[in-house]
Amino acid sequence: MATQEQLHQWHELAQQFRVDSIRATSVAGSGHPTSSMSPADLMAVLLAKYLSYDFNDPGNPNNDRFILSKGHGAPLLYAMYKAAGVISDQELMSLRQFGSPLEGHPTPILPWVDVATGSLGQGLPIGVGVALAGKYLDQLSYNVWVLMGDSETTEGAVWEAFDHASHYNLDNLIAIIDVNRLGQRGQTELGWNTQIYANRARAFGWQAIEIDGHNLIEIDQAYSAALAVNDHPTVIIARTKKGKGVEALEDLGGWHGKALKSNQQANAIAELGGGRDIVIQVSPPLTQEQPATIGQCQPLSLPRYEQGTKVATRRAYGDALKALGAARPDVVALDAEVSNSTYAEDFAEAFPERYFEMYIAEQQMVAAAVGLQVRKYKPFASTFAAFLTRAYDFVRMAAISRANIKLVGSHAGVSIGQDGASQMGLEDLAAMRAVGGSTVLYPSDANQTAKLVVQMSDRPGVVYLRTTRESTPVIYGSDEEFTIGGSRIVRGSDRDQATVIAAGITLHEAIKASDRLKNEGIGIRVIDAYSVKPIDVQTLHQAAQDTQGNLVVVEDHWFEGGLGAAVLDAFVGTADTPIYQGPQLRLIKLAVRDMPSSGTPEELMHAAKIDTDAIVSAVRCLSPVAGSRLGERQKLGSR
Amino acid sequence: MATQEQLHQWHELAQQFRVDSIRATSVAGSGHPTSSMSPADLMAVLLAKYLSYDFNDPGNPNNDRFILSKGHGAPLLYAMYKAAGVISDQELMSLRQFGSPLEGHPTPILPWVDVATGSLGQGLPIGVGVALAGKYLDQLSYNVWVLMGDSETTEGAVWEAFDHASHYNLDNLIAIIDVNRLGQRGQTELGWNTQIYANRARAFGWQAIEIDGHNLIEIDQAYSAALAVNDHPTVIIARTKKGKGVEALEDLGGWHGKALKSNQQANAIAELGGGRDIVIQVSPPLTQEQPATIGQCQPLSLPRYEQGTKVATRRAYGDALKALGAARPDVVALDAEVSNSTYAEDFAEAFPERYFEMYIAEQQMVAAAVGLQVRKYKPFASTFAAFLTRAYDFVRMAAISRANIKLVGSHAGVSIGQDGASQMGLEDLAAMRAVGGSTVLYPSDANQTAKLVVQMSDRPGVVYLRTTRESTPVIYGSDEEFTIGGSRIVRGSDRDQATVIAAGITLHEAIKASDRLKNEGIGIRVIDAYSVKPIDVQTLHQAAQDTQGNLVVVEDHWFEGGLGAAVLDAFVGTADTPIYQGPQLRLIKLAVRDMPSSGTPEELMHAAKIDTDAIVSAVRCLSPVAGSRLGERQKLGSR
Repeated sequence: MATQEQLHQWHELAQQFRVDSIRATSVAGSGHPTSSMSPADLMAVLLAKYLSYDFNDPGNPNNDRFILSKGHGAPLLYAMYKAAGVISDQELMSLRQFGSPLEGHPTPILPWVDVATGSLGQGLPIGVGVALAGKYLDQLSYNVWVLMGDSETTEGAVWEAFDHASHYNLDNLIAIIDVNRLGQRGQTELGWNTQIYANRARAFGWQAIEIDGHNLIEIDQAYSAALAVNDHPTVIIARTKKGKGVEALEDLGGWHGKALKSNQQANAIAELGGGRDIVIQVSPPLTQEQPATIGQCQPLSLPRYEQGTKVATRRAYGDALKALGAARPDVVALDAEVSNSTYAEDFAEAFPERYFEMYIAEQQMVAAAVGLQVRKYKPFASTFAAFLTRAYDFVRMAAISRANIKLVGSHAGVSIGQDGASQMGLEDLAAMRAVGGSTVLYPSDANQTAKLVVQMSDRPGVVYLRTTRESTPVIYGSDEEFTIGGSRIVRGSDRDQATVIAAGITLHEAIKASDRLKNEGIGIRVIDAYSVKPIDVQTLHQAAQDTQGNLVVVEDHWFEGGLGAAVLDAFVGTADTPIYQGPQLRLIKLAVRDMPSSGTPEELMHAAKIDTDAIVSAVRCLSPVAGSRLGERQKLGSR
Repeated sequence: MATQEQLHQWHELAQQFRVDSIRATSVAGSGHPTSSMSPADLMAVLLAKYLSYDFNDPGNPNNDRFILSKGHGAPLLYAMYKAAGVISDQELMSLRQFGSPLEGHPTPILPWVDVATGSLGQGLPIGVGVALAGKYLDQLSYNVWVLMGDSETTEGAVWEAFDHASHYNLDNLIAIIDVNRLGQRGQTELGWNTQIYANRARAFGWQAIEIDGHNLIEIDQAYSAALAVNDHPTVIIARTKKGKGVEALEDLGGWHGKALKSNQQANAIAELGGGRDIVIQVSPPLTQEQPATIGQCQPLSLPRYEQGTKVATRRAYGDALKALGAARPDVVALDAEVSNSTYAEDFAEAFPERYFEMYIAEQQMVAAAVGLQVRKYKPFASTFAAFLTRAYDFVRMAAISRANIKLVGSHAGVSIGQDGASQMGLEDLAAMRAVGGSTVLYPSDANQTAKLVVQMSDRPGVVYLRTTRESTPVIYGSDEEFTIGGSRIVRGSDRDQATVIAAGITLHEAIKASDRLKNEGIGIRVIDAYSVKPIDVQTLHQAAQDTQGNLVVVEDHWFEGGLGAAVLDAFVGTADTPIYQGPQLRLIKLAVRDMPSSGTPEELMHAAKIDTDAIVSAVRCLSPVAGSRLGERQKLGSR
């Protein structure tokens, strides 16, 4: 039982959080004071008694982890940091200012923030990932605490997390739902009906505890109960009032995301008992254990494929990931129930203790990857390229989290054939390129794939690898090296009349086109642009120089935003880089323009005009030797 | 109670479905026979007794709707069409062939398919949309049946649908889960534990009925019970066996997505009692009612904004949508709990009967829009541009569904200011451009926004409108017309030295840059490229011609895939269109390159180098008058 002294301290701390949340948002002129006030009591007890965290050593592996899933409650989080003595009151007052690490929603610019939040419904699925690391990889006793808003429980990803947390018996995961009843624009779907929340959570295999979120004794008991349970995650469903403690705000609509004006602020602070500068000693972890090491470190022995054979790059991904796993105990893998198609299953069979089956829940898969990298693991998460779109918001947020995750999308393009458009990744390059700081790779060959998989592991940020369903010829030797940002000239001479830039499956079409055109006396350069982002600008410029600006880009992707766009971007100036100065570009872009259907890979690539025939036609159109009618209203498609 | 005769007929029909699923996939050499066999009994009873559908008039508003959420069960669906007498056995055997409408996963190329499936977990949320239309808009008595796989229940979107269906009391929605226990690569998460499914569904407010999915009497009773209930949706959780009826396949792993070889096929068909050619008369709807008309048709009276005032385009969206709603009863709106930010709330207040609050569930929101357009409504679905990424897979699939939906993303770009990166839509243009057949609009002015909103309503496909948080000057008269595919030259003369292409908030920076440069004696053309896709190629070509190829594109978006990419695409050749022939492009692209933070809109646009200063610097770099040092290694950024 809590003592009267403790209860008093917690109350004072909670009031300080409320006052500081109001003060910081008032200075900023924007932000979410009332959303920060409803869970203040919950956070006071957590910080003062339960959170086991060394603020001087955020990287301590034994630290508990805390995720503010309701990221708009950032003022409360920063008020907690002030109370923990790690930021000053002056720093707190820099909230939302340009250059301040105290952003409007938390980001890992602050050393105590592990992941960015602000897109609702992501904190719990990410927490699942951290808890998986704690229980199964680190094998340490830290807990993962996630403070959620009630509004965000309508996000499906939250239920993916409820499902997976119980499936993996994550008793080290504790979710706290701040049921303040009021969303941004009015009452939430379930209001204060905490019983429905509890019933749903229990149906998903959780321990659920309903409490009054302003009753410090109930909060204390709930946290104790959460720590006592074995084999189940716990959710504490706390009935609270938005704007709690200030009559003019409490449980009233119209106050979401609004800072108080000067006179309102003064009254509110007075009602809360005035400003306070309590600093508490947050308990550091009691143990100093080291994380378990799963697996042994062996020399890297990559698969080697014989030139001339045919191997799908997805197959090479599976082989290389398994090899990497043998060499590096920090490599882990996840898949969304298609591991026998992506070939992540090879890793799963070899290293079951480092493989997490995410079933068909791509959002949870990417979120778990983000959570796993919080604890410095190197997660490779795979599914069909098409289905990674399901997790696009999580990928976007991973970039803001400065997370180092590796995503692998198989079954790219129309060349998958008979399954039809729903299974074809045709927008993945565009989507992944438009992620801040991302890397996008699209190998054409099995040996190349293996080399790139190795480099992915330590590449910072969101790193995406696109693999191909079909078997394609092995064109590179197994000793060749490939670097991110590079490219390969696979055909060419001093007298090339045009350059064809391709990657993945279309590279093989380009090679065939080169052979066919050679017979017509037309020499072309063929570039394997396996590194789509960053792209090899220098090699592209040289090719434009050498082939009179005659370029053909061909890709198994929608017309917009893919390899063709990456190539074009290589020829523009930016605010910081000069404009290309070579010969005028005559660029033909071959990409998918009409909705594909079922058919054989060959039929579909032909119909999409991204096959050898289309490349040959495009080059002929550009080439002076073939009597180019450059610029004429000539339809390449009519062949 | 079903008669013996009925039971016999249903059994025969189910066996025919199984045989035909095997035959069609064997001919195709790929596909999912075993996944089609497990729910065959369920579908036999549905088709023979419960489905109320006029196959000769798929558009009949009184028709029940059936969605095969487990789209890989397409062979079963097509076998049902054969049994309904609308496709021949020969047509059935064209499964997965190039040119056949019987694609690997269902698409609306077939008149009886309303929406494409194949990305799992989408059928139920879309069904929610159709059921919303039936209950609240059409006010007709048809039912919506959704056949789901068990594996797909791990998708969060399914739980968004469970939640919303009970919130909206959709007693016209019946989900059937085919619990065959086996996913693609092994046992599902919950196996045959149908009680867990039932408990979860009940916690989400559904009637849940557990049955043996091969017991025709239990199936019959479950359907009856589903139709009898009021105020609750029903889910029938049917325990089945994958590959049911063939010993070599039944309940065995390793058979997912595999066609039978010739001898296997012969044995299987024999075991199933041989081929059949039963054709049944599916009951057409008993009633011939017309859908209700919600609201009256008034002349369109768009809002008018005075030039020189400042109005946010999101504000204009809200006003225009309300005006459109008054004029057109078929316009409906949805929002994901941010209607007071997107301004969808104005429509919600004026036409509450045509507004659906989707809470924070963007996947369900887009899915509901797809479902509503099945019944010919014109759904406008809005949230922050950043959060539409949550539904990207649904948008992708909407395009394959040939769905006509309108998506509106507010709070685009770094110019939203203090809330920080998590709330900034910075990848939306790239993502939405890379959707098959999409339209992407990004207005800069309130009057323009209003005109474009009207045009969105009848535009086919996925139509995306990007709006701006900040108030911006009204620069166009309220009588000006703007067409999709057009653009506007807002500054320019005969002696322009460069062209600046902008849209949305950056257009106003470009105008300011024009004024500043004019003082330096540099005339520039400023193009408002409000139609990002399709883009106004002709106007861009003319500008390049008139300004010596000197172009600056400036956008509040990541560097990749947005307006700049759209402009570049206007200057390439394709398989069907010729190459641009004008002066060599000297294009500078100004876009967001580093992760933004919090700050004022002005600070953030300046830091991102997309403001007036950056445009002025870029133009100076291009302009001969200003002593251009074109191509020099000069950093524009150092100002």
